[in-house]
Amino acid sequence: MKDALRVGIAGLGRMGRRHAENLARRVTGAALVAACSPVDEERAWAKQSLGVQHTFSEYATMLARPDVDAVFLVTPTTLHAQQIIDALHAGKHVFSEKPLSLDLDQCLRVEREAKRFPNLKVMIGFVRRFDASYCDAHDRIAQGAIGTPFMVRSQTLDKHDPSGFFLRFAATSGGIFLDMSVHDIDTARWLLGSPAPIRAYATGTVAIHEGLRQWQDVDNGAALCEFAGGKIAYFCASRTMAHGFEASTEIVGTQGRLTVCSNPRANLLDIADAHGVRNECTPTFYERFEDAFLREDQAFVDVVLDDRPPPLSLHDATEATRIGIALRESLLTKRLIEL
Amino acid sequence: MKDALRVGIAGLGRMGRRHAENLARRVTGAALVAACSPVDEERAWAKQSLGVQHTFSEYATMLARPDVDAVFLVTPTTLHAQQIIDALHAGKHVFSEKPLSLDLDQCLRVEREAKRFPNLKVMIGFVRRFDASYCDAHDRIAQGAIGTPFMVRSQTLDKHDPSGFFLRFAATSGGIFLDMSVHDIDTARWLLGSPAPIRAYATGTVAIHEGLRQWQDVDNGAALCEFAGGKIAYFCASRTMAHGFEASTEIVGTQGRLTVCSNPRANLLDIADAHGVRNECTPTFYERFEDAFLREDQAFVDVVLDDRPPPLSLHDATEATRIGIALRESLLTKRLIEL
Amino acid sequence: MKDALRVGIAGLGRMGRRHAENLARRVTGAALVAACSPVDEERAWAKQSLGVQHTFSEYATMLARPDVDAVFLVTPTTLHAQQIIDALHAGKHVFSEKPLSLDLDQCLRVEREAKRFPNLKVMIGFVRRFDASYCDAHDRIAQGAIGTPFMVRSQTLDKHDPSGFFLRFAATSGGIFLDMSVHDIDTARWLLGSPAPIRAYATGTVAIHEGLRQWQDVDNGAALCEFAGGKIAYFCASRTMAHGFEASTEIVGTQGRLTVCSNPRANLLDIADAHGVRNECTPTFYERFEDAFLREDQAFVDVVLDDRPPPLSLHDATEATRIGIALRESLLTKRLIEL
Amino acid sequence: MKDALRVGIAGLGRMGRRHAENLARRVTGAALVAACSPVDEERAWAKQSLGVQHTFSEYATMLARPDVDAVFLVTPTTLHAQQIIDALHAGKHVFSEKPLSLDLDQCLRVEREAKRFPNLKVMIGFVRRFDASYCDAHDRIAQGAIGTPFMVRSQTLDKHDPSGFFLRFAATSGGIFLDMSVHDIDTARWLLGSPAPIRAYATGTVAIHEGLRQWQDVDNGAALCEFAGGKIAYFCASRTMAHGFEASTEIVGTQGRLTVCSNPRANLLDIADAHGVRNECTPTFYERFEDAFLREDQAFVDVVLDDRPPPLSLHDATEATRIGIALRESLLTKRLIEL
Repeated sequence: MKDALRVGIAGLGRMGRRHAENLARRVTGAALVAACSPVDEERAWAKQSLGVQHTFSEYATMLARPDVDAVFLVTPTTLHAQQIIDALHAGKHVFSEKPLSLDLDQCLRVEREAKRFPNLKVMIGFVRRFDASYCDAHDRIAQGAIGTPFMVRSQTLDKHDPSGFFLRFAATSGGIFLDMSVHDIDTARWLLGSPAPIRAYATGTVAIHEGLRQWQDVDNGAALCEFAGGKIAYFCASRTMAHGFEASTEIVGTQGRLTVCSNPRANLLDIADAHGVRNECTPTFYERFEDAFLREDQAFVDVVLDDRPPPLSLHDATEATRIGIALRESLLTKRLIEL
Repeated sequence: MKDALRVGIAGLGRMGRRHAENLARRVTGAALVAACSPVDEERAWAKQSLGVQHTFSEYATMLARPDVDAVFLVTPTTLHAQQIIDALHAGKHVFSEKPLSLDLDQCLRVEREAKRFPNLKVMIGFVRRFDASYCDAHDRIAQGAIGTPFMVRSQTLDKHDPSGFFLRFAATSGGIFLDMSVHDIDTARWLLGSPAPIRAYATGTVAIHEGLRQWQDVDNGAALCEFAGGKIAYFCASRTMAHGFEASTEIVGTQGRLTVCSNPRANLLDIADAHGVRNECTPTFYERFEDAFLREDQAFVDVVLDDRPPPLSLHDATEATRIGIALRESLLTKRLIEL
Repeated sequence: MKDALRVGIAGLGRMGRRHAENLARRVTGAALVAACSPVDEERAWAKQSLGVQHTFSEYATMLARPDVDAVFLVTPTTLHAQQIIDALHAGKHVFSEKPLSLDLDQCLRVEREAKRFPNLKVMIGFVRRFDASYCDAHDRIAQGAIGTPFMVRSQTLDKHDPSGFFLRFAATSGGIFLDMSVHDIDTARWLLGSPAPIRAYATGTVAIHEGLRQWQDVDNGAALCEFAGGKIAYFCASRTMAHGFEASTEIVGTQGRLTVCSNPRANLLDIADAHGVRNECTPTFYERFEDAFLREDQAFVDVVLDDRPPPLSLHDATEATRIGIALRESLLTKRLIEL
Repeated sequence: MKDALRVGIAGLGRMGRRHAENLARRVTGAALVAACSPVDEERAWAKQSLGVQHTFSEYATMLARPDVDAVFLVTPTTLHAQQIIDALHAGKHVFSEKPLSLDLDQCLRVEREAKRFPNLKVMIGFVRRFDASYCDAHDRIAQGAIGTPFMVRSQTLDKHDPSGFFLRFAATSGGIFLDMSVHDIDTARWLLGSPAPIRAYATGTVAIHEGLRQWQDVDNGAALCEFAGGKIAYFCASRTMAHGFEASTEIVGTQGRLTVCSNPRANLLDIADAHGVRNECTPTFYERFEDAFLREDQAFVDVVLDDRPPPLSLHDATEATRIGIALRESLLTKRLIEL
């Protein structure tokens, strides 16, 4: 067996803990040797539950350790860009949760810095690229199963949370398109062969969460984006679904259509009762993509151990942000945005 | 246009009215000229709503009319055999609702009599043979789409009626297998190529309707039937479903499987709400087979007008009764029945 | 029984024959007494197959008959407006196939003229308003099943026809949005409660049929339309599907989502074979909406016989055209259109 | 963290390797310290790929190690009973793949011996009891979601393998009911609340694999089994499906029905193309139950570490064998078997 990749994780919130558990227990070839969090309880959890040897309250201290080969960033979005650059300067490979940044200049700055460290891997966690069904779709397209793909419809819909918990993050989320649709944007680019975006239009509405208006945000949005070569994508995002979390994507080609997740079923159970024939749905994105998060973590570790290029580039992450910003601008200005 | 077939209908209960409406309004080539019912209101309805010219309280009077070419029997099962024979003797073509009879001797007697009138058409209403989806299955099998068919699973499930209305008919229904499974038996024979039955075993349970015990009947039954050539059918019948009426049938062949109605959806609507993703279901057999009843009525009229053999024979109806009787006997005796 | 409505039909092409058969055989309360077509064979067919008494080569001659109460127009779109007005002046009720006109001024002119004849019924055939599943959706919304509806996604997709037959009509169809999406536009308005349109954006691509470029048309289009009160609709239209005809519509409300036709299955048959588990699809719009066309014809006859207002108004038809024109203009100019 | 359970595995064939990988990499609280196989390559693989410290060609040698706490048996069925007893005598906890034995006396002997070692855990791997969808069904039943469950339909269908590879095992498999339906039998007992079996009837046919006749086996079987309290189960097993592996189970209760896996979809992808709308299917049981095997391995390790009773008892395994033997006897004798 190869030597394991020694990983330090930054951020032990909800998603951070899940990446940490994957790295500690399920990812082959990885050893979770360090964890960094400003929260005492989180560091204690990492030590006790996962047996992480070294924990830190400061990211810089973790970066200073020579026995850490790679870092996983599961930190607030506003920190990603600088933390990636710092990690590179410290000689570490970097995995960062999406998005790269809500600021296009920051994205480009990270791209520039990363080019200076060609031996270090940097990958942004667009998790759908690692989901078995999305991968199956991508492979079939590559094999010509639907001819030339030219249209994508993709939507990300959150279950309505009556507590309005997500409103706490509304000020810094970047708005519905940068926070949610960025996944659909990346998926569309990936499945359409990374065409250049040309123009975009977006609109939205506040159906339930009036509190979003102060942030000029909406709880339901729809957008249309044109790409070079007559490629088209349309997106929908919602925070108000009654049935559950749903991420569904259609890819239309000249010889067929693929649909990922036409029904966001929680599992393989059907219930026939006074409500009809039904299935319950995935409550959050995590139940839907739990396997994909593991595959994503494994993929990054493999990329580093095998010294291969990551399956998605920093430029992909930049483009997703660029289109997301255009959608937000269109929403705010009620204008068509040329890209 | 050919001269229309002049039809008289006997029985104007729930299903009788529906056949009458079909014949009066929707079946091409038919004229509903006579109707017979012991109930004054039903005869008045036929006159006023459908414009039926002649109505009768006595079946024999209707048979005596020379301007009636064919009769439709939508009368109690116990009357079918004699009424068919009487109609033949009166020179009328006959369509009768299923089953032919609950008594095997009566079935055979009708077969014998009918042979004496080769110019008159007799057809028993096994409605599934006229349903678009079942016909599609039958056609595909005939074209070899699933290789050699060898196994059928077919079930007929009624929605639970808390009023227990069906219990009124329990004394004369013949029991769950002769009343409900007879459709599945006919379907299985039809799709398997009419193999000879060899032996059968049936069991059942009273899940809800304790009142059935006095008639030695059950509200849920299951049965296994072997046919010549290694063909197998298994049946299920229920009167206690929570979600609706469901008739579903699988046909397995050496190269594929066909399933008719894996989900008894009421229409094309899906609902995503707090109950999950769901569809409502057909409440009764009528919503499911409404189109098939019309096609069945049209088919019989066409058979007569075109002087073609009916798509199912009296012998088919006899065989369905014969197997149904065996299932009932097996249920009652807890023994395997050799046929 | 009431006296039957005496109907004359104009146009006996593919759809005209189907309306004629409905009126002659299946619509209760209607008598198809006259038919008008410039084609000798079509008139002969009406006489022989349907027993239509009077046939005409000229529309004006049919209008002159005092024994015709109502006309059905199944003629080229460019004729609809003037033929409706002529019928009104002749004292006839009018049913016309959609769209009312591709020209907004013509639509408004018909509206004005119709107001002068308040005793005559005029109805445009937006067939989805008569489909059982769409009606179920509409009724549930009216009953509050999904709270306040605010977003519709609706798409109309034709099966790819390698013969390119539809190209013959490309010059006069009005383009993909006026020809196909007009159904989705009307559906969205109906389900959202007829909100006023505010602005629209559309784009499209030629995926297969290069011949469309000379008409500045596309074979795949997508559009986004905003309405007053934060209502949103997005549309997709295609002429290049591999699997069949598909009309699917989602309606999102604050408490649930309804979907009409998530799978355009041809019937209730599922096939499990080397291709997986699958169902075949409706080949054309007619198989999908055959029942709805009959209900539509019946609805119009009932509206006249019962002297009730039609379920959709001329203004509804005008609005559908108005939005369709905006989408075409957006496609051609690559601009956002304010309405 | 607790001390890890030190596991030795016996058998490194196809399924053995998968259990070994789970134990080495993914099961929390387990350490795979030993492996036993007569095949040199398999032992080498365990060392190199999984880092297993100690490998053995003899089972007895592994049992002699004091640093092994528990053994996993993934060996031929004929060895299970004796190997379990040997492990108990050596003071080891035991997990064994299903079935316990094809011989009822052997099952009972293991039960007797195990009672002598109350501190040692023994669990047989009926994997469906650890599948998320089956567990969801079981939990809902326990919560009363379908009232009183009284009928189960369960089927296990293998994809047709044109190579006939499985015929190699036909001599020792115990026949289709003991080899395949044993899963359905256990599932039915579990979901129905472990009622006592009363009588059973089975039949079958050779649809494709003529080579089975020499072993008096069939490639498609169907069976009906009655239990105390009016509970009924019917089973179907096939080795000749065209579409893939399918394990589907219906549980009917007085207030609803649950169905596990009405469509054995390979993943969440739908394909719309010239074959209709379709999904591909799981090719083998492993793709379907991969997650359940991991949960099963984890469950056994947790049972030992937490000193809890296993979720299924040896008696459950004995009963599955007992009913399976009755079905085989019924198939061979064409008689109803009283249990």
